[in-house]
Amino acid sequence: MIGRSAVAVRNITRADRASVSELGKYGVATVHEAMGRLGLMASYMRPLYPGAKVCGTAVTIFAHPGDNWMLHVAAELLREGDVAVLGTSAENTDGMFGDLLATSFRARGAAGLVIDAGCRDAGELRAMNFPVWSKAVHAKGTVKATLGSVNTPIICAGALVHPGDVIVADDDGVVVVPKLQAAKVATAAAAREAKEAGTRRRLAAGELGLDIYGMREALAKAGLQYFEDESAYQKECLK
Amino acid sequence: MIGRSAVAVRNITRADRASVSELGKYGVATVHEAMGRLGLMASYMRPLYPGAKVCGTAVTIFAHPGDNWMLHVAAELLREGDVAVLGTSAENTDGMFGDLLATSFRARGAAGLVIDAGCRDAGELRAMNFPVWSKAVHAKGTVKATLGSVNTPIICAGALVHPGDVIVADDDGVVVVPKLQAAKVATAAAAREAKEAGTRRRLAAGELGLDIYGMREALAKAGLQYFEDESAYQKECLK
Amino acid sequence: MIGRSAVAVRNITRADRASVSELGKYGVATVHEAMGRLGLMASYMRPLYPGAKVCGTAVTIFAHPGDNWMLHVAAELLREGDVAVLGTSAENTDGMFGDLLATSFRARGAAGLVIDAGCRDAGELRAMNFPVWSKAVHAKGTVKATLGSVNTPIICAGALVHPGDVIVADDDGVVVVPKLQAAKVATAAAAREAKEAGTRRRLAAGELGLDIYGMREALAKAGLQYFEDESAYQKECLK
Amino acid sequence: MIGRSAVAVRNITRADRASVSELGKYGVATVHEAMGRLGLMASYMRPLYPGAKVCGTAVTIFAHPGDNWMLHVAAELLREGDVAVLGTSAENTDGMFGDLLATSFRARGAAGLVIDAGCRDAGELRAMNFPVWSKAVHAKGTVKATLGSVNTPIICAGALVHPGDVIVADDDGVVVVPKLQAAKVATAAAAREAKEAGTRRRLAAGELGLDIYGMREALAKAGLQYFEDESAYQKECLK
Amino acid sequence: MIGRSAVAVRNITRADRASVSELGKYGVATVHEAMGRLGLMASYMRPLYPGAKVCGTAVTIFAHPGDNWMLHVAAELLREGDVAVLGTSAENTDGMFGDLLATSFRARGAAGLVIDAGCRDAGELRAMNFPVWSKAVHAKGTVKATLGSVNTPIICAGALVHPGDVIVADDDGVVVVPKLQAAKVATAAAAREAKEAGTRRRLAAGELGLDIYGMREALAKAGLQYFEDESAYQKECLK
Amino acid sequence: MIGRSAVAVRNITRADRASVSELGKYGVATVHEAMGRLGLMASYMRPLYPGAKVCGTAVTIFAHPGDNWMLHVAAELLREGDVAVLGTSAENTDGMFGDLLATSFRARGAAGLVIDAGCRDAGELRAMNFPVWSKAVHAKGTVKATLGSVNTPIICAGALVHPGDVIVADDDGVVVVPKLQAAKVATAAAAREAKEAGTRRRLAAGELGLDIYGMREALAKAGLQYFEDESAYQKECLK
Repeated sequence: MIGRSAVAVRNITRADRASVSELGKYGVATVHEAMGRLGLMASYMRPLYPGAKVCGTAVTIFAHPGDNWMLHVAAELLREGDVAVLGTSAENTDGMFGDLLATSFRARGAAGLVIDAGCRDAGELRAMNFPVWSKAVHAKGTVKATLGSVNTPIICAGALVHPGDVIVADDDGVVVVPKLQAAKVATAAAAREAKEAGTRRRLAAGELGLDIYGMREALAKAGLQYFEDESAYQKECLK
Repeated sequence: MIGRSAVAVRNITRADRASVSELGKYGVATVHEAMGRLGLMASYMRPLYPGAKVCGTAVTIFAHPGDNWMLHVAAELLREGDVAVLGTSAENTDGMFGDLLATSFRARGAAGLVIDAGCRDAGELRAMNFPVWSKAVHAKGTVKATLGSVNTPIICAGALVHPGDVIVADDDGVVVVPKLQAAKVATAAAAREAKEAGTRRRLAAGELGLDIYGMREALAKAGLQYFEDESAYQKECLK
Repeated sequence: MIGRSAVAVRNITRADRASVSELGKYGVATVHEAMGRLGLMASYMRPLYPGAKVCGTAVTIFAHPGDNWMLHVAAELLREGDVAVLGTSAENTDGMFGDLLATSFRARGAAGLVIDAGCRDAGELRAMNFPVWSKAVHAKGTVKATLGSVNTPIICAGALVHPGDVIVADDDGVVVVPKLQAAKVATAAAAREAKEAGTRRRLAAGELGLDIYGMREALAKAGLQYFEDESAYQKECLK
Repeated sequence: MIGRSAVAVRNITRADRASVSELGKYGVATVHEAMGRLGLMASYMRPLYPGAKVCGTAVTIFAHPGDNWMLHVAAELLREGDVAVLGTSAENTDGMFGDLLATSFRARGAAGLVIDAGCRDAGELRAMNFPVWSKAVHAKGTVKATLGSVNTPIICAGALVHPGDVIVADDDGVVVVPKLQAAKVATAAAAREAKEAGTRRRLAAGELGLDIYGMREALAKAGLQYFEDESAYQKECLK
Repeated sequence: MIGRSAVAVRNITRADRASVSELGKYGVATVHEAMGRLGLMASYMRPLYPGAKVCGTAVTIFAHPGDNWMLHVAAELLREGDVAVLGTSAENTDGMFGDLLATSFRARGAAGLVIDAGCRDAGELRAMNFPVWSKAVHAKGTVKATLGSVNTPIICAGALVHPGDVIVADDDGVVVVPKLQAAKVATAAAAREAKEAGTRRRLAAGELGLDIYGMREALAKAGLQYFEDESAYQKECLK
Repeated sequence: MIGRSAVAVRNITRADRASVSELGKYGVATVHEAMGRLGLMASYMRPLYPGAKVCGTAVTIFAHPGDNWMLHVAAELLREGDVAVLGTSAENTDGMFGDLLATSFRARGAAGLVIDAGCRDAGELRAMNFPVWSKAVHAKGTVKATLGSVNTPIICAGALVHPGDVIVADDDGVVVVPKLQAAKVATAAAAREAKEAGTRRRLAAGELGLDIYGMREALAKAGLQYFEDESAYQKECLK
């Protein structure tokens, strides 16, 4: 057999609930840093409305441009707390997902959608408070003609997603945490958050990152040259 | 005579008011589907603010990049309930339209603007609640030097618009309904909406699209293969 | 010495406070027009949240893609009312700036940030009401490895910015007013605003720009041809 | 009936052969100017290989993203000297056309293809010397599942194309000449070319456009101010 | 341990030589189809010069924007017939690779490079006949400051690449064949090519795809409606 | 006076001929590195044909979108060896420059053009061997209605250009060398080239950059971890 099309996997191993719950406390930037600056989707993935936030386990969907058939197959396989994640075989901005599918997904327990294509019924989705991250918002309708897959590994907006991985998404984009690393990343995120809280207080009090992080020496070593004013700098430029 | 420049048509046939009024009840996605998935402008046409919505008859404007002279010509030809629709002879993001023109357009009865270029004074337009769909928001000023046309057929963001056609726009984009088809499309949209209401209720109750739309057989015929779990799938992959 | 890297200038001449304060009363479009349609950054520079508005004096930062070291150097050199403006040596969308730096910048007196790259912690920045204009919103973390400069002339989103220049930014984008021209531009903006107020009243009353601006003669001279209706126009087209 | 899908028109009126032959002598820029600067497709339409050139009559195709079924329907309706022109219902870069279809199209008399999507088998098409203008070159395969139309009016890359219109394409892009205007445009193009030949000789001899076109007075009237050298200009700037 | 940074794997299992050699006979479009329309990189990956062609085994590189350190680590691990494939942690167009690295890579046996970022020294690379597929050509220099990885799974331009997978690239883009499927895909590609040869002959002789593929019935069933001429169609439209 | 519009400076100080001549020996990448990785225009600036190369002194042009009037003003001010460089007040892809202007520019001694907009007559320009770097190739015609400036400082594709600066352009893009730094940069470029020649020989002989540049220690210090094979790495990942 070649590849990953025409397949649906009914039962998947999901990241453990405790880790998902813990990861849900942190923003995308924090989780991404806690993973060693990995796992981010591309910057074109934007939330449908500001303030949208989700953390859940991935049900993955692979689809062809302009064809949303597999979203219906996915609906049956969603469980409480899942986030549907759709990657495509080529660039697409069609409105593959709208309020009817959102109604169905929510009824099946889904917490949100991440789609490397377009979505539509934006007003209704906002009213439903159903969070979506997409490449585009466009009314363009789709067909149901070609098979893709559900719950096989996919690539979505430049990130690899396995079924059951943790998806964290907010205003800063979407990050994927591999299910086996969920606990470790949650711990690292908590540590980072704790450390940042202290730094934030010091910065708010007017201390400088230069001092808190001890950067002055490294900057000097790298050759940073200070001038007292613009004319001193300009004089140097003309040398 | 060649083409459509340097022309303004004073009186145009507009879609009948009843159809416009009826179409105004539906979203862009519904109207686009009711037309057989036709008539949509490109996905880069976005509302100036979320929740913007308009339905009206088109007064068409053809303009050259960076030149907003014809918008002033159009102002005189606008009637109550019109939507100004501007297409350009080449790609442009300059701020061709701002709060002064919006004040004028509103005074002449216009319900909104669709512009395949930029608009500016975004804050003021939002405050005025004057709905605009555009390719960009940018302060860049324009000149008044080259003639275009008003009320001739134009192309705006990939869609053909005749003067008097119905323009429906919301968060999902902009759709054009040819004036002669307005009544038929309104009827089709109403039928679609009615049908979707029933489907929505069933989906909300947890029924699956797979069953409501009877997709299971077609999926099986197309060769969709279900696996009980990931390891069964992986075993198949290695065959 | 070549170029402008590895340099930081401690004290800069800033535009006079009165002019900055006066310019702060006007929108970007007005200021841009008052400068003779110059000084605008590219249309891809967008506010982090609608309604954001800032007017202040530039502390300039030159940085390399994916490296936010110089933002820390800049923090020390910010004064009350400054706007940090960052240009890069190549296209970049990484999240160079987030809530920790915003906390630091605010503590040092900064009024906002304009960055030709990405920012992150969008939700926190909005909650802090710290205005940012950027090319992207993305969680992608950055390193601190390569020197750039602070308070030397830079190019940001296609605009030249000298340290101390006035930065005006709102929903329509970002405009740069050279410090030596700040007073003149403020005066010109005030004049424009006053004149527009009168025009706005006349337009709101239904008068046409065609008459207010006296365009009818110029349009006729340029060859604009009016047709009474579509059939008259179509007849002409077939000639 | 709504719209233009699911339709194929067997026999169309084509622009007269003499005009097509005459238009084939001129470049796209000349023809576009001869039409009053109208009729151009968007700048993203690029030839598959430099030096490609075609002039022929349009057989129009309307297709959905990722579906090339209608290209097969079109093959039957092509006549000697036709250029197939394909517009889509939404943005797409899939490789809808390759060497097999090119073999078929050529056997049916087609002179080339203009496609607002992707093409593939670029090496083979170049070897066949079959000219193609497209939005992308990409191997992505397509399906044959949804009907579009052949020989109805379409929009391709922002230009309206009626069946039988003249398509002129070269390194500068693609221009559409309405069939009824073909003779007039050919005459205007010839006149322009003749006039330009004289101008070219004078420019080659070192004469200036300023003098040939008599621009000096208009520039002065518009306020162009000459300075003898940079220091004179800088002095003025500081005033 | 989290993720895949700061790692280099010295010895990898490569696809078998016979399959690589066989796959090298086919174009990207054919291989992509033979895989069931999977494995393609995004359409923005373009060859440095027309006619470039490569088929080899992947040595994978993961790097951060603007940092080409790992390309030097990769040089040591390249073997005869390898193709270096570089993915990044965020969008980048810097010139990470030039003629010095090409000289080194060639000396180590590499057959080419696929890079989801920029390359430079385009003239020299063309002169060396060293094939490169990239997102951009740009002189922008890079640093050597942050670790990535070599020979771990990466994502490059939307495609998953494991070390040792087969990379086929030509004018149509880049396709990845998983090493375990190389033999099967080669066989399928050969079959497809053989079948297409026959089809090509029939098409060249003027037979139609409609008949060769037996599409007429399916088109009729889908509702395709033929009209004899434009007026018949227009009459139908007005009904 | 505000800004830089409506001005033309007749005589400018140009970089000294010896430095220009020396810089002409090096590629854009080398010159950019010799400047400390500064001075590059954006990556979207591409040569009209592969292999184009120019080195000359800038005559700068500032123009508005779709208006090429100032190119005629510039023609008179060009001297032997100049390169015309055009920046715009907003994004534009119109074909501002074609074979007539190229004929004029060449007759006046110009060596080439760099334009942050479109050019046209691409076939003729290639035949004339007149090198152009542009953002687009498009037949779109322009008007002559609004003043810009000639020989004042401009920004072109993100780079600051003063009249008389050295412009070096090739397949890798365009770099600007400030006239006062021309001699120093030429010397640094020569040194870099000499050093690279030695490195190239060693790399060609199979030596590794890791050893030539002494990177092994720094990589180890940064934490690079080598694994003998994929299974060793995978074992580590699961720890």
